[in-house]
Amino acid sequence: MILIKNGTIITENEIIDKGDVVIDASLISYAGKGKQYKEKFDKIIDASNFLVMPGFVNTHTHLAMTLMRGISDDVPLQKWLNEIIFPIEAKLTGNEVYIGTLLAIVESVKSGVTTVADFYFHMEDVAKAVKETGIRANLGFGLASKFDMDTLKLKIAEKFIEKYNNTENGRILASFAPHAPYTCTLKFMKAISERAQKMNVIVHTHLHETEKEITDFKRKYGKTPIQKLEELGFFKAKVNAAHCVYMEDTDYKILKENNSGVALNPQSNLKLGSGIPNIPKMIEYNLNLGIGTDGASSNNNLALIEDMRLTSFLAKGVSKNPELLPAKKLVEMATMTGAKNIGFENVGVIKEGYKADIILIDKNAPNLTPFTDPYSMVVYSMEPGNVDTVIIDGKIVMENREILTIDEEEVKKEAAKLVKKLLG
Amino acid sequence: MILIKNGTIITENEIIDKGDVVIDASLISYAGKGKQYKEKFDKIIDASNFLVMPGFVNTHTHLAMTLMRGISDDVPLQKWLNEIIFPIEAKLTGNEVYIGTLLAIVESVKSGVTTVADFYFHMEDVAKAVKETGIRANLGFGLASKFDMDTLKLKIAEKFIEKYNNTENGRILASFAPHAPYTCTLKFMKAISERAQKMNVIVHTHLHETEKEITDFKRKYGKTPIQKLEELGFFKAKVNAAHCVYMEDTDYKILKENNSGVALNPQSNLKLGSGIPNIPKMIEYNLNLGIGTDGASSNNNLALIEDMRLTSFLAKGVSKNPELLPAKKLVEMATMTGAKNIGFENVGVIKEGYKADIILIDKNAPNLTPFTDPYSMVVYSMEPGNVDTVIIDGKIVMENREILTIDEEEVKKEAAKLVKKLLG
Repeated sequence: MILIKNGTIITENEIIDKGDVVIDASLISYAGKGKQYKEKFDKIIDASNFLVMPGFVNTHTHLAMTLMRGISDDVPLQKWLNEIIFPIEAKLTGNEVYIGTLLAIVESVKSGVTTVADFYFHMEDVAKAVKETGIRANLGFGLASKFDMDTLKLKIAEKFIEKYNNTENGRILASFAPHAPYTCTLKFMKAISERAQKMNVIVHTHLHETEKEITDFKRKYGKTPIQKLEELGFFKAKVNAAHCVYMEDTDYKILKENNSGVALNPQSNLKLGSGIPNIPKMIEYNLNLGIGTDGASSNNNLALIEDMRLTSFLAKGVSKNPELLPAKKLVEMATMTGAKNIGFENVGVIKEGYKADIILIDKNAPNLTPFTDPYSMVVYSMEPGNVDTVIIDGKIVMENREILTIDEEEVKKEAAKLVKKLLG
Repeated sequence: MILIKNGTIITENEIIDKGDVVIDASLISYAGKGKQYKEKFDKIIDASNFLVMPGFVNTHTHLAMTLMRGISDDVPLQKWLNEIIFPIEAKLTGNEVYIGTLLAIVESVKSGVTTVADFYFHMEDVAKAVKETGIRANLGFGLASKFDMDTLKLKIAEKFIEKYNNTENGRILASFAPHAPYTCTLKFMKAISERAQKMNVIVHTHLHETEKEITDFKRKYGKTPIQKLEELGFFKAKVNAAHCVYMEDTDYKILKENNSGVALNPQSNLKLGSGIPNIPKMIEYNLNLGIGTDGASSNNNLALIEDMRLTSFLAKGVSKNPELLPAKKLVEMATMTGAKNIGFENVGVIKEGYKADIILIDKNAPNLTPFTDPYSMVVYSMEPGNVDTVIIDGKIVMENREILTIDEEEVKKEAAKLVKKLLG
């Protein structure tokens, strides 16, 4: 058992000053103040100088793309994908994806991220990295149509999901991740959704990212991808839809009616020139908004707080309404709403019975001084380096900024070597 | 003399790998590679693991507003100013502004900022903090019209400028800082510009921040503030215009023709719901674009890299052109263009004869691994905590993240105490 004592705690509905959190195995068994303890704790953390809050949930990323960080910026999405990213990805081995994923997890944890929804290939190797590092993850098995191999691919994905979904004490979930309606046939998308419903796992996919994607699709089918997919019953599965930049009112309605999740990736959308997601509209439709970073080669880092901050700025800037999305709401999006969107039900809140995914933030950092409103501090002022300690599933993964589960220096060395080879 | 050896150096036109920088007193006396030295150095810094680049220039801020950080977010600009900020500011003493400024400088330096253009009141106290900490600054003496006190105020500002402009070996410049055309009479603005021209200092002011400001002004005068000020010869002075969110084509033209500087503050503009600056238009008009954070209570931090990153995102996102503002250009804006805009001519470049304002960035941080294109790393991936060492005017102000010129812990303690008093 771990006791975190004397911290400023962000709970579901209130801020507790000088409060305690007790962790029993992987769960939070107490959050409050004034309690006397008879238990003997394995570890007591003095949180007098810390803000204690749920870890951040990154609902859309491609972890191993850390390997392609900074090698091609300031170019459009399709060029970037076809001329630079895809050729490198075609060469990536499972072990290379493993290294890239380890690196991404180190960076994620160091910025306070405790849960990620990854979406890639060589997923067995990704799972290995997730197991070893201790991060919580939903592993999306990437799929794209290819000749007559769709049935076979679906089967392989199914096997992966059977093997990994709800393993490691529920720390790992698995999901189907069809790349997009422009790389998967509609028949394939439909089959995937049906399998996902039967297996009770989410479908994680890219939807409505660029204008061209919508124009092309409408020319062919007379409606948007979301509208066409709805016709096929696609959204009967629990869907986590990344991007959603170009949307018609009907599209928002469909996502709402089906209780789908949206993964906002504003940095990636702006950086790639895809456009500005209409966040005010999404709020109007009361969608389930989670936040993602996208891969580190289109963003270019994995600090979810940056995308949370930009989500706030864009909501307010586009609507010219500074009251839209107050800081508390943004913290909820980046924690519990995100967790639900990617299939984790009791994650993202400091509350009895919830998973112990907790981060400690140094209230004494100059950029957090004076430490006034905790929500404001987290959303508008904090930087990744303010995260001191990270606990995931009741296990201390980082303490005093040192990663305890794997060798950070070794991972960075391996990754650097590997990238030299890939580019050379 | 200081030798920084074996670093990856961003110079004006190229990246030097395994290069050296030599600092002689306050100036850079060499930047290159392969040189043999006979000199005896006072200090040798091994930069094998560092990126060596010019420090960032924050062209618009109100340093002491750190004291009001996080006490009022998610409200509109005028309400924020009139109901929350102004009443607190009315009570601030010189010593309190001094403490708030010290805190802001600590935060600035820790995120790699070596030069700031401050704009506030109690400027003697601000100057004291700037002197002690070692940061480079242009101190804007804040002015607003009040009954028949304009002439007197101008005189006081003039005296301040005479006393401080071009002091401390040129590390401190001073300027006139009329608040805005809606708080200063046109007559006052004109008189200020004329004095600034005679004294050869810049005029630092807020222009075209909100839509209401433009609508109100046009109703009264039939033209925008920039157009009206141009009529009065205001832009004959060297102007640093903060914000410029709502602009007509004529306004951009006027700024271009007069070689004025723009201080972009995108985080503040979005957060306050003022709107989104039209950066693509500014690029089209080839304006002198510098970047600022604005005060820490409307942003809410002083890490210039965040505003640099957002400038890139907005340029690309609004224009839907990801090739607009490549990373190298953004680094230039955040260093040498910014420096010029606020009156520093030989600042912001690593080059012989330039001021030694240099920062060392840890290339081994996980978010900078693999360390590929240095411009991309700085603009898209780095975080404040990656800054290891900061040299300003040839003096080491921070080393291994420790501030050497003042006592950081003492400043934070004082600031926290003070804020408790102000709010209580």
